[in-house]
Amino acid sequence: MEKPIVGFIGLGIMGQPMASNLVKAGYRLVVFNRTREKAEAMAGELVQVASSPAEVASKCQMVITIVTDSAAVEEVIAGPQGLLGAVTPGSIIIDMSTISPAVEQQLDSELRRVSATLVDAPVSGGDIGAQQGTLAIMAGGDRDAFERSLPLFQGMGKTITYCGPVGSGQLTKLCNQILVSVNLLAVTEAVTFARKTGLNPETMIEAVKGGAAGSWQLANLGPKIARRDFAPGFMIDLMQKDLRLVLEAAGSSAVCLSAASSVHQLFNAAQAKGLGKEGTQALMQVVETGAAL
Amino acid sequence: MEKPIVGFIGLGIMGQPMASNLVKAGYRLVVFNRTREKAEAMAGELVQVASSPAEVASKCQMVITIVTDSAAVEEVIAGPQGLLGAVTPGSIIIDMSTISPAVEQQLDSELRRVSATLVDAPVSGGDIGAQQGTLAIMAGGDRDAFERSLPLFQGMGKTITYCGPVGSGQLTKLCNQILVSVNLLAVTEAVTFARKTGLNPETMIEAVKGGAAGSWQLANLGPKIARRDFAPGFMIDLMQKDLRLVLEAAGSSAVCLSAASSVHQLFNAAQAKGLGKEGTQALMQVVETGAAL
Repeated sequence: MEKPIVGFIGLGIMGQPMASNLVKAGYRLVVFNRTREKAEAMAGELVQVASSPAEVASKCQMVITIVTDSAAVEEVIAGPQGLLGAVTPGSIIIDMSTISPAVEQQLDSELRRVSATLVDAPVSGGDIGAQQGTLAIMAGGDRDAFERSLPLFQGMGKTITYCGPVGSGQLTKLCNQILVSVNLLAVTEAVTFARKTGLNPETMIEAVKGGAAGSWQLANLGPKIARRDFAPGFMIDLMQKDLRLVLEAAGSSAVCLSAASSVHQLFNAAQAKGLGKEGTQALMQVVETGAAL
Repeated sequence: MEKPIVGFIGLGIMGQPMASNLVKAGYRLVVFNRTREKAEAMAGELVQVASSPAEVASKCQMVITIVTDSAAVEEVIAGPQGLLGAVTPGSIIIDMSTISPAVEQQLDSELRRVSATLVDAPVSGGDIGAQQGTLAIMAGGDRDAFERSLPLFQGMGKTITYCGPVGSGQLTKLCNQILVSVNLLAVTEAVTFARKTGLNPETMIEAVKGGAAGSWQLANLGPKIARRDFAPGFMIDLMQKDLRLVLEAAGSSAVCLSAASSVHQLFNAAQAKGLGKEGTQALMQVVETGAAL
C-alpha cells in the first residue's frame, strides 16, 4: 500500500525529531511551523513547507499536530487558517500534544461535522525518546482511525497503546503524570530523610532500587538528586502545565487526588523560588526545606 | 574456614525460611522461638533447640534475631534470660527485625560493654524473598562485624548493602518504606483517576508502566488494584508499624515528610474501615472514596 503524504504541524523539541523519523521511515511530509525558519530547515525532496495549517489540510488526509497547549491546538485546528477550513472528508487529525481531554473531545465534534475525525495521541519519553523513536504513545479515538494511524506511530514510538474513545490518550497521559510526579515526591522525601539521618543517599538508592521501592524516578532521578544535579530532563514549568490538566480533569470527574494536588503545590513553591526552568528533580530544593501540605 | 555455629531467634513467617536457608547453606543452628513448637519442628541433626536466648548466646558467637518489634528485640537481647546475660566477648548479634534505629543504637551500646557488637540488618522482599533466598538486606554496624556476617547474609539474600554505622540498616529500610508507600499512593490515585474518567485501568497500566511512570508498585500491585484483589502480600497493619518508625525517626531528625505522613493517615482510615489485615493495596478503598489530607 502506498504511503500517504503526511501533514506535520509543530516542529519544536519534540516535533522536529518525530517528523525526521517519519521521513526516515519513508513518508513524504507537508510541514507547518509558526516560526517558519524551523520548517524551512527541514525542506527538501521529501519535505514541503506550507504557509498555514489550512494549506496542510488541503494537501494531506493525515495530519499530525504537536504544539504547546490547548489554546495552540485550538488555533491550529479551529482558528483562522486552521485545518477545519480546508480538511477533506475522511481525514484524520492526530494530535500528539499534551492538552485537555475535554478540548480534544470538543475538536473531534467539530471535525466530525466535516466528516473528519480526531485521534488524540500524547507521548511520553521526552526529547531523547523522540530522537530515538522510542516514545510511548497513548492514543484515543475511533478504533478504525487508530488502526490507520498505527504505521505512523510505529515510525515514531515503541510502546503504542489504544486507550479508548477520543480523549482517552490524554487521560492516560495524565495518569502517567500523576505517577511520575508522586513517585518523584517519594524520591525527594526518601533522599531528604536519608541525608538528614546521616545516610549516604546514593548508597541508600543502590540498596533499595531493585525491590518493592523501585521506580524509574528513583533509578534515574534519584542519583541526580543525591549529587544535586538539577539540569532539566523535563522542566518544572512543563510538569505544572500537565498537573493543571490533571487537576482540571479530576475536578470535572469529582476525583480526589490528595498526593497529586500536594505535589502541584510544592512545584508552585519551586516556581516561586525561580526553579521553573530546572528539571522536575529540583522539587528536592522545596522538600528539603520542610515545605509540606 | 570452618563455618560457625549460628544462633537463630524468631521462627516466624520470615525467620523460619531464612533459618532453613542457612541450614541448606551448611550451617549448624541453635534456635529459640517464644512458641517452642515452631523450634521443635526444625530440630534435627543440624538444628538444636534452646530454652532461652541466654542459652543461645552461651553456645554461639553469631546470633541472628528476627522478631516482631522494638520491644521484642529489647526483650530478646536485654530482657531476663536475654542474650546480654550470657554473650561472650567478640560475639556479633545480627538483628534482622524492622525496628527503631535508636533502639538498635542503644542495644549496641549495651552489647559493647561486654565486648560484643550489634549489626542491624533489616530485610525487604517479604515471605517469598525469604523462602527463595532473594531478600534485600540493608546492614549497619562495624564494618568488620558486617564483613564477618556477610557469608550468613549471602545464604539468605541477594542484594546485600553495607549502609554505615549501627542503625543505618534500619534507616535505609525506612527509606524503602517511604518509597513503597508513597509509590503505592501514586498508583491508587492514578487508578482512581483512570476509573472515574472512564479509562480501563489495566490498559492504562500497560500503556505507562514501561516509562518514567513505572514502579514495582505499579507493575505488581497495580493490576491487583485494578481487579480489586486485596489479598495480603504485605499487610496494612505491618506497614503502619513501619511508618510509625519512619515518622518517629523523622521527628527526631526534624525531617518534614509530607507525603509519607499523608499515606500513614490514609492507612489509619483503612484500618478504621477494618482493612488492617488486607494487603497494602487496599489503600485503594480509602483513596477512591475521596479521603484526602
